[in-house]
Amino acid sequence: MKFTAQITVMPLKELLDPQGKAVTESLHKLGLSGLDNVRVGKHITLQVEAASEAEAKANTEEACKKLLVNAVMESYEYTLTAI
Amino acid sequence: MKFTAQITVMPLKELLDPQGKAVTESLHKLGLSGLDNVRVGKHITLQVEAASEAEAKANTEEACKKLLVNAVMESYEYTLTAI
Repeated sequence: MKFTAQITVMPLKELLDPQGKAVTESLHKLGLSGLDNVRVGKHITLQVEAASEAEAKANTEEACKKLLVNAVMESYEYTLTAI
Repeated sequence: MKFTAQITVMPLKELLDPQGKAVTESLHKLGLSGLDNVRVGKHITLQVEAASEAEAKANTEEACKKLLVNAVMESYEYTLTAI
């Protein structure tokens, strides 16, 4: 079975996000004053080939924990869609 | 009215994504051979203060076009949620 995984990795809410802060200020300088609290993270899509949805989930989690996410500074969530 | 915008910015499908390719290879080296076709983009959350949902949409679009998205190389989609 093949799945598409959509993974969103964001800086933890408790931490400052300097990139987001810079973007917020740039938006204000562009005159977009109604926009605030920007936070910038990563969005990762990948294809998972696995025998079952449970195996696909396990593989995706492993990829997140081993490579894609720095658990000290980031949180993640993902969805799997069969294709 | 206040809204949360969730914006996903991804490299265009037609273009190579070197970062995604590097991640794919790293996953394979880690023994996760069932994972493929990694593409890496950005996920941006922000808060929008606007008089109506239509205005919030217009502001979000403007932010994407003026600052957040490089339309030559990237596509974007977003959702707005009232808070």
